[in-house]
Amino acid sequence: MADGTELTHITADGSAHMVDVSGKATTKRVATAQAVVRTRPEVIGLLIAGDLPKGEPLAVARVAGILAAKQTSSLIPLCHPLPLSGVTVEFSTDESTIRIETSVSTTGVTGVEMEALTAASVAALTLYDMIKAVDRGATITDIEVLSKSGGASGEWTRA
Amino acid sequence: MADGTELTHITADGSAHMVDVSGKATTKRVATAQAVVRTRPEVIGLLIAGDLPKGEPLAVARVAGILAAKQTSSLIPLCHPLPLSGVTVEFSTDESTIRIETSVSTTGVTGVEMEALTAASVAALTLYDMIKAVDRGATITDIEVLSKSGGASGEWTRA
Amino acid sequence: MADGTELTHITADGSAHMVDVSGKATTKRVATAQAVVRTRPEVIGLLIAGDLPKGEPLAVARVAGILAAKQTSSLIPLCHPLPLSGVTVEFSTDESTIRIETSVSTTGVTGVEMEALTAASVAALTLYDMIKAVDRGATITDIEVLSKSGGASGEWTRA
Amino acid sequence: MADGTELTHITADGSAHMVDVSGKATTKRVATAQAVVRTRPEVIGLLIAGDLPKGEPLAVARVAGILAAKQTSSLIPLCHPLPLSGVTVEFSTDESTIRIETSVSTTGVTGVEMEALTAASVAALTLYDMIKAVDRGATITDIEVLSKSGGASGEWTRA
Amino acid sequence: MADGTELTHITADGSAHMVDVSGKATTKRVATAQAVVRTRPEVIGLLIAGDLPKGEPLAVARVAGILAAKQTSSLIPLCHPLPLSGVTVEFSTDESTIRIETSVSTTGVTGVEMEALTAASVAALTLYDMIKAVDRGATITDIEVLSKSGGASGEWTRA
Amino acid sequence: MADGTELTHITADGSAHMVDVSGKATTKRVATAQAVVRTRPEVIGLLIAGDLPKGEPLAVARVAGILAAKQTSSLIPLCHPLPLSGVTVEFSTDESTIRIETSVSTTGVTGVEMEALTAASVAALTLYDMIKAVDRGATITDIEVLSKSGGASGEWTRA
Repeated sequence: MADGTELTHITADGSAHMVDVSGKATTKRVATAQAVVRTRPEVIGLLIAGDLPKGEPLAVARVAGILAAKQTSSLIPLCHPLPLSGVTVEFSTDESTIRIETSVSTTGVTGVEMEALTAASVAALTLYDMIKAVDRGATITDIEVLSKSGGASGEWTRA
Repeated sequence: MADGTELTHITADGSAHMVDVSGKATTKRVATAQAVVRTRPEVIGLLIAGDLPKGEPLAVARVAGILAAKQTSSLIPLCHPLPLSGVTVEFSTDESTIRIETSVSTTGVTGVEMEALTAASVAALTLYDMIKAVDRGATITDIEVLSKSGGASGEWTRA
Repeated sequence: MADGTELTHITADGSAHMVDVSGKATTKRVATAQAVVRTRPEVIGLLIAGDLPKGEPLAVARVAGILAAKQTSSLIPLCHPLPLSGVTVEFSTDESTIRIETSVSTTGVTGVEMEALTAASVAALTLYDMIKAVDRGATITDIEVLSKSGGASGEWTRA
Repeated sequence: MADGTELTHITADGSAHMVDVSGKATTKRVATAQAVVRTRPEVIGLLIAGDLPKGEPLAVARVAGILAAKQTSSLIPLCHPLPLSGVTVEFSTDESTIRIETSVSTTGVTGVEMEALTAASVAALTLYDMIKAVDRGATITDIEVLSKSGGASGEWTRA
Repeated sequence: MADGTELTHITADGSAHMVDVSGKATTKRVATAQAVVRTRPEVIGLLIAGDLPKGEPLAVARVAGILAAKQTSSLIPLCHPLPLSGVTVEFSTDESTIRIETSVSTTGVTGVEMEALTAASVAALTLYDMIKAVDRGATITDIEVLSKSGGASGEWTRA
Repeated sequence: MADGTELTHITADGSAHMVDVSGKATTKRVATAQAVVRTRPEVIGLLIAGDLPKGEPLAVARVAGILAAKQTSSLIPLCHPLPLSGVTVEFSTDESTIRIETSVSTTGVTGVEMEALTAASVAALTLYDMIKAVDRGATITDIEVLSKSGGASGEWTRA
């Protein structure tokens, strides 16, 4: 799929609009995205013991991400409201990072990349909120779309 | 200020709660944060001409960030609602990045780091939404608190 | 219809997700639910005179219930957003109770039991809010689904 | 504390209003409330093993309750917005019930009974959402305020 | 009180911000506003009989206005969140108009003109929604602030 | 198209409901609406220079209008949620007025007049918010539907 060469959300006179997607086909669409929280190893240890979460912090972040996916079109001004048919938010950790991977699906007329990214971002912000008292300097990085399918532009996977 | 050694949002039995802040002092508090969008140079060119925005994309992202700051406690489950007294969202660009810097102030009982981070994140997501048709592979990175002041923990600036 | 034997919202590893309903059929679906507010007879008298409401308290509760039905997927984390096609909230009273009965319909891929229950619950909470100055001890009980139709599981009526 | 004899939210002509509380004192206020979900014993078994939750259903309900507490004034039309200073949502189970107990605190001009009730109700609805595939006939009952303190009306505990 | 000569929400470089009001005094503030719905006389007759509402349309519009007042800072991007202490929405009619008058009070650092205007506007839109099937050509006019008090700029009444 | 003779949102017994639209056809529907802000000529000069906006006030109002269109069914109690497929908000000025014209489209079962009116109203309120420090007496007028198409009632254009 080739990327375009103009900002579709901005009209010729420079003003923003919510693009009319009436003519687009209703198809099954899926997008996956990620976000990464970088912190100190001992903070990872506070969140998980071995492979097990210690209490509920990951569940809290997961719920926040799922709810945020459903709020995407209220947060991102030019984003179309979509009837989401599924949302997952998963976590994996290594020594000093927590990686969040989200998957969002819809049967609709626009893609769900923004929903997947929003879920990942809000889950990451929620983790930061829980660890900020122990590591205010933690950073959220690498928020990006991993793949998408469905719609006129077809399959796309991050190289 | 020394960081703590436990997750204050999680009780001894592992369950999450919204910490009682009744006893904390009402003081003026400010936090600044950033997010960075990495894209291709020609996409930066679509957003700005010289130092000037071309049309409204930066304004759209700015408004999204300001509104998101006010929604922080609805998005981040364990975050306290706060009467924000000011929010700014500023942009700077170099060859292949757009950097967003936010500042949030309140006169309240908890800090506003989460509000500053949420404003920066949602402004970045809004920029991605506008450029994704020309650069689906763009990445959002380096979301972090830059400084905070006010409250018992006093001043903090990222090293 | 036989009930299942597992929690469909929880995956094998114990984590929550918003179940993918992409494959489910879009059909007309209706659910009815109720909630009951128990209070003192004189409080019922403050709300109605004979069969007539005295002023607007029932209207306020009705509007609150209708609006809440539309917010269900923002309130209940694993609930799918649905395009509601109709909502009614009706009241009946006896000596010391106000019974709220709701009906919600959609043409969609999941049932609307949660929307009907949420409408009934929020209408009941709104009534409590209006009467709490005269009967703080009032109780909300018997929140339950009365019937549902549409979808793979077909008709169901509370025995 | 004696209960009143009129509906304070309704004016003499029968119309609803959000009562002016400008003259009320800002004090620390706490309210506790409960809701009870009645289901079948084997469903309780799906939610917990011994005293331990199996995966995340209780965490999901807890987060939903906390977020709902913060949305109370958007859901209940005549309820005043309040800066909540703390929210807890706890669960206890016996053979066929899950009892939810909530506690909400504020430093504000009105009580937080509605916030505590809303948190309990939405946590209960969220549990129902997760168990409805295995017990559609489950019921939510006994939603009531347990105690309140602070403000002109002082202490109140359910008899 | 003299009006200013610049747009305080726009900085010298033309960008929007939520103005920092940290330094402003917390005082009791009240604003009143109005909106007028112009329709046909027979439509007024559908809404009221003599001086009495026929069923609930005015109550529905009143509740919508009260709830909207509380959502003002989510709707108007540069508006500060405020703890509203009271909201009223009243109706009066003549042959072919329904006039809505709102009053909003707070103890806060900014005025509540926007909240009073938003309540009036949304109440008017809600009336239009209910009458549009009988008079699609109805118009909403004369949305304006009637008076304000409190804060540095003191009393103001529309001439 | 002939207007009706009853309030469809109010049942025979006078109570409000969200009308069941299950039986209505899913068609492409468009509505246009307007709102007008009346202010002083020098205030118009603060907003635009020649035909160009001075900084971001029009962009802020545009984004507010687009976001509000998507919130319509949360603001207007008896309005159905709809999957909006496009929203535009345009401005034109003469000596002492700013006219806002909105266009909203959907492929759905009800019209989008309320969405177009809500977008125009909130854009107008946002402009008022930005100019109120220089012209508190500014007025919002002439909020009305300009045209609609689609659905059983077909085309309608304001005479």
